[in-house]
This record gives sequence, C-alpha cells and structure tokens, in this order.
Amino acid sequence: MKRAFIIATGTELLLGNTADTNSDFIARQLIQAGIKVIGRIIVGDQQEEIMAAFSLGTQLADIIISSGGLGPTRDDLTKETACEVMGVELEIIEEEAVKLKEYFARRQRKMPASNIKQAMFPREAIILANRCGTAPGMYLYKDEKTLIVLPGPPHEMERMFLDEAEPLLREKLKLTDSRALSQVIKVFGPGESQVEEMLAEIIDDPRGCSLALLAEKGEIHIRITAEGTARQESQKILGEIRKRVIMAMGDNVYGYDDDTLISVVTGLLQDKGLILATAESCTGGYLSKMMTDLPGSSASFWGGAVTYDNTAKNKLINVKDDTINTYGAVSEETAREMAAGIKEVAGSDIAVAITGIAGPEGGSDTKPVGLVYIAYLSDGEEKVYQLRFNSHRKGNRILAVKSALDILRRHLQGR
Amino acid sequence: MKRAFIIATGTELLLGNTADTNSDFIARQLIQAGIKVIGRIIVGDQQEEIMAAFSLGTQLADIIISSGGLGPTRDDLTKETACEVMGVELEIIEEEAVKLKEYFARRQRKMPASNIKQAMFPREAIILANRCGTAPGMYLYKDEKTLIVLPGPPHEMERMFLDEAEPLLREKLKLTDSRALSQVIKVFGPGESQVEEMLAEIIDDPRGCSLALLAEKGEIHIRITAEGTARQESQKILGEIRKRVIMAMGDNVYGYDDDTLISVVTGLLQDKGLILATAESCTGGYLSKMMTDLPGSSASFWGGAVTYDNTAKNKLINVKDDTINTYGAVSEETAREMAAGIKEVAGSDIAVAITGIAGPEGGSDTKPVGLVYIAYLSDGEEKVYQLRFNSHRKGNRILAVKSALDILRRHLQGR
Repeated sequence: MKRAFIIATGTELLLGNTADTNSDFIARQLIQAGIKVIGRIIVGDQQEEIMAAFSLGTQLADIIISSGGLGPTRDDLTKETACEVMGVELEIIEEEAVKLKEYFARRQRKMPASNIKQAMFPREAIILANRCGTAPGMYLYKDEKTLIVLPGPPHEMERMFLDEAEPLLREKLKLTDSRALSQVIKVFGPGESQVEEMLAEIIDDPRGCSLALLAEKGEIHIRITAEGTARQESQKILGEIRKRVIMAMGDNVYGYDDDTLISVVTGLLQDKGLILATAESCTGGYLSKMMTDLPGSSASFWGGAVTYDNTAKNKLINVKDDTINTYGAVSEETAREMAAGIKEVAGSDIAVAITGIAGPEGGSDTKPVGLVYIAYLSDGEEKVYQLRFNSHRKGNRILAVKSALDILRRHLQGR
Repeated sequence: MKRAFIIATGTELLLGNTADTNSDFIARQLIQAGIKVIGRIIVGDQQEEIMAAFSLGTQLADIIISSGGLGPTRDDLTKETACEVMGVELEIIEEEAVKLKEYFARRQRKMPASNIKQAMFPREAIILANRCGTAPGMYLYKDEKTLIVLPGPPHEMERMFLDEAEPLLREKLKLTDSRALSQVIKVFGPGESQVEEMLAEIIDDPRGCSLALLAEKGEIHIRITAEGTARQESQKILGEIRKRVIMAMGDNVYGYDDDTLISVVTGLLQDKGLILATAESCTGGYLSKMMTDLPGSSASFWGGAVTYDNTAKNKLINVKDDTINTYGAVSEETAREMAAGIKEVAGSDIAVAITGIAGPEGGSDTKPVGLVYIAYLSDGEEKVYQLRFNSHRKGNRILAVKSALDILRRHLQGR
C-alpha cells in the first residue's frame, strides 16, 4: 500500500482559528483511492520550515502532496522549496507564460511582473492546469517519490486534484481502490445518544463492520466501514449492516454519502414537478439562500419573502396586523398566515414559513429563545410545527432551517 | 521569541473527518502567551512516524508539545518515543503507581497490568497531574528544548494545559505576554497582487514590522506585526506602519481585526438611524441571511424579497414585466426597478438589489456567467453598478453579496 504525507503551508493555518480543510479533502480522496495517509503537517511561509516539511515527507512516504504557497508574491515559496528538496531546477515554461499573459489580457488587467514565477516549473514535471485561478500545480515523479504541488484556495485545489492529480496518480501508480468500503447513512431527527440506543444491537454485533457516529449540526451521520479479504466480501458485509441500520432508523434516514437535506429536498421537488416558495422571519433568508445554493434550483424554487420586521409580514405577504397583535409574531397563527400569504402571492404548489426567536435577546417566559414555528402548506395539506432549540443564535437559525427542510422532505415523501 | 512545534498523534485524525481541535487549542494558548507556533503535525500510532515528528520538533523549535497516545495499550507510544528522542530513560515512579492503584480502587475496578506504564516517567521530568483521567502528562527541559506531553481526550488535555503546563512554561521560560503586537487591516476592492503593488514601498521598508497578506473570498487582510524590544516600542512602530498602510489603501479599507463587512455596515446603519431593505435574485437571500446573522439586526434591517423566479420580481416588488422582457432579468434596468420596488413596499431609507448570473448555467455571450448588477437607492441617491466575477457559483454568489455590502459601506461613509 502506497504511503502519503500531506503538507499545508500558510501562516494563518497555524493560529488555531482557521481549519486546514484542504488536507482533510486530500486525505479523504487518497484513502478512497487505496492510499494510506501516514502524516500531515502545517507550516508557515518560512523557507526553513517548508523545506523541513518536504524533507520529512520524502523520508516517510511514497507520495508527498502539498497545498498553498503558489501565489505570485515573495511569500509564496512552496513550489521552489519542494523542487529544491527533490533536486530539480525551475525554469520559465514558455507555454505557461503565454497562458498567464492571456489570462490577464482577457481580464483587461496588466500582469504584475512577479506573476511570472507562476509559469516556472522543472522540465521533468507534469504541469497541472488551474481552471479557476492563475497558479498551475505540478506532478513530479523522481527517485521513487511522487510529488504533487497544489494551490491553496480550496476550490482551485479541489478541482485540480480531481481533474488532474488523481487521474495521474491512478495511472502512474496503477492504483486500485481500497478493499475497504464505507458508506454514510444520514439521519435527521433523533439526537446522538438516541441514535446510539436505536443502533445498540448492531453496535454490539457489527459482523465485520465498524460503525462511527458523527453529530453535525442537528444531523447524525452514521459511517459504516467494512473491510473483508476482498472487495466483494466487503460489499456483502457492508450491504447486510446497511440494511439493518436503515431498518433501525426508519424514516429518520434522509440520505446517503454526499446527499444533503437541500439536495434531497430539491430532488423530491423536481421529481414531482412542484414549486416551492418561502416566508422567513428569524432565519432572515437562510432557507432561501440554501435552496439556491445548488445550480438549477430555479426549476423548483420560486423565491420568497424575508419578513424580518413585523410590517414586512403584512406588506409583502398580507399577514393581518390583527393576527400579529393578538397572537404575536412568533405564534402558530402567524406562521400559518405567512405560509398562506406567500403561497397566494407566488401561486406556488408548496409554501413553508418560519418564525421564531433566534436569540440571544427577545425571549420571554412564555416564548423563550429557541422557540420556532414552522408552517407547511400544500394544496391538500396544512400543518404547523412547534419546535424548541437550545442553542445559540447561529445554532438556532441553522436548526430551524434544517428542520424546515426535513419537514418538507417528510411531507414530499408522503409521510 | 520562543518557537513551538505542536504534535498530535492518532490514526483517526489522519482520515480527514475528525478535526485536530487539540492542536487548535494549544496553538491559540501559546500565541497568547507570546510564543510563536512554527508548525504542527499529525501522525498515526506507528513508532517510526511519531519519532520523526518529535525529531523534527526538536530540530525546528524550542518547545515541542504533543497530545495523544498516553493510554495503557501497546498502541500508545507517544511518551516512550518522545523520551527516546530526548535521550532520557523511563522508570516506574512509585508515587504515580500508588495514585494509579488508588484510582482503580476508588472505582472498584482491578487495574489492568498494562496500565502501569502510565506511572513510568523519566526522573528528570515534572509530572503533570490529570484530574479527569488516568494518564498523567510530563514537562521536560533538556538541552535547551522544552518538551510537553499531554493526553488526547480534549477535556483532559485542556485542563492539564491550563492548570499545569502553561504556568510551568511561564515560570520556567520567564514568559511575559508577547511583546509583539499585531493588527489586521481589512480591505475590499483590489486583488492580492494589486494590494501588494500598492504597498510595495512599505513591504520593501517595513521598519521593524512584518506584513502578511491573506486573500479571503474577495477581501484582503493585511496583518502587520511589530516586535520591538518592549511593548511600548512595538506600539510605536506598529502605529507608524499602520498609518502608512491606511494611507496607501485609502477608502478600500473597510475595517480592522474582528470587523466584518456585515458588522461595519450594520454599525453605520445604526449610527445613522437608517433602515435597509433588500431585493435579491441570483443571491437568493444570502445578503439578507448575512444581515440577520448578528443579534440586534432588526434595528436596521427591515427584510426583503427573494425574487428568484421572474414572476417574483413582479408579484413581490412590482418590477414591470415590460422591463424584464425588454432588458432581461439581469440588467441595469431590472436592478434599478428591484431596488425602487422593495424601497416603495418597505418604506425604508435605503434599498439594495442584486441580480446576476451565478452559473454554472444561464450565461450567454452578451451576458456571461459572473455578470452581476447591484443597485443602491436612498432618498437622495441612486446608482447601479455592473460587476463581473470569474468564480464558480458559490464564489460568484458570495462575491456579489460582499460587493453589495461594500457598496453600502462606501455610500454610508459618504464616498
């Protein structure tokens, strides 16, 4: 099994406030390709430490992958240092210099002189195209070591890894996927210890699998990993445990692996040819923002009203002042009228409304912080849910949005 | 300034699914104590890699701090390996063996034989008490290197660091809080290489300061760090460079340190007693979501319309169908009517509207992906901005939202 060492460069990653998500991504991809990750390191932008990181990588591993430090400034030393450790020289590659000049010309900007270093590579390297920025990466095989140098911005790095680096790795190192198989089953509704209880029998007797629970902002992700003596056997034991987990969790399962509540709900709306409109108070547009995160969402999402101020509830979607005065802005009645109001204005098939108290201010004894009403309204069905969250403002808001999506999912699945 | 290297051991930390929060915590604490973190590494439970990590630490840094691998099993090799690298021998420390036996006796459990290794330490070490578990840590100073070994469970590690390790560090290394001072100046508008050119003179002659640029989704953060011989001197040199940076960046500076575009815009609105309403198409409520992220936003934010579908532009905020048919949904004219429409409905002081093509679909030759119009409208002023972003959907959306906030900021600051 090939062994990989992952390097991230960037002073900001050393401060303890910014997560090194690039190395997380690279680690997951490598493991999936059957490569063992034996270590990862973060260093700043000082040459001594960058050099030590690459030296350690070549000492411990077969594959060394770095992200960051490919920018045009003098702080950006990763490629130069990696090449020094590998004993190869950089030179200007004419083709890359032309591409770089074209990139700036297209944007009608003058190329700063320092950018030319982004066109410098060793002759021995394969240059990895950057479709989202100016800094290409590189792939170099020398002395039985594979070096892959990627840019720092996550979307540039991910695209380059998937489109350029991974296919090269698979081809050059003749990788086959790992024998181990895993699947994530995603659940919304019960809490972590509740899920643990529901799965107690399986956890006690996992029959060659391992189970791990990850709590993720109101969701629980159940990761099942099976490693048989061959891929086929892994498949079989994974399939059996998977079936038992799904049985135990019932309709709390909303999806698998890369599914998100948004992707599942959008898929259901599109399959059924239904259009959704939203009305949001305490979540301030968070639900509609998420509904439009995915491309193509216009096929099933009409839009909505962000009725943060009380007058907005009346002026945008005709909630009666009387209702707000009598029952309050955070009430079953107001939620119901918000949903009815936006559905009427939009002429949509379905409407969802959220009103609540996100906190930290605005709570009272009868209506505490974390109280949220979610109204679901379709042509044949109307229901208002009263929920109570115990988080801070940010947590209460995301829990309200996810709960609304889960309510949508359950209704659309006809439950 | 003392230099620290942080080590985490644990196979699960290499998979890309579990964050190394221990090292985050340790990094933040060290920085606060005036210690520079120069690198961090994660390795699994193999002795070769653990040894390489400690060797690298002693090579690069004055202080090496590890967490994890202090358990009773044969996988737990951190302390043994660290001691081998430092050239010290482990022996059973009678006092610790007694404590360990008492710990198990109190819980009426028989101590597994393997647990005795948790009572083994070098004579030269200071043993760090573990108030929450069985594995003590250690503090060792030898050959001008300080080694601190902490347990892996976060609550054990944090308690031990704060109660035991940090006071020792401060006492033995005579740390005072850092003499170094730093400030972040936050800029929106110019790109990274453009900022570097604008600051070229200062970067060439930073007079005792160091400057670092961090590009963060359309923003550039300029971190100035000054380290004089005393705090007062640091303050003086920081103040001078700060003034020059602000002068060079002009009205592109939107804030400092913990400021965000949202906090700055919300502050300006509240200071002036103005109310904002929004109309969003391609950003789908992202701007209103951000406007309501902060508590107390209801004082200056009314709400808005998410007019994702074209009919929503008409039905919610009275954009004329004629306008959309003649100029298109993504046009200066539609942006202007969206702002006018929401301002009229809301009766707000200010309105901002966003319409554009986020991608990846929907672009054309004349209206490419990334084209965005942002309209600003107040009682005395109206302006529509045409912008062009070169990112993917997610990037184009956040850039549109941040640009809208920056446009608001500049208008509110009377520029």
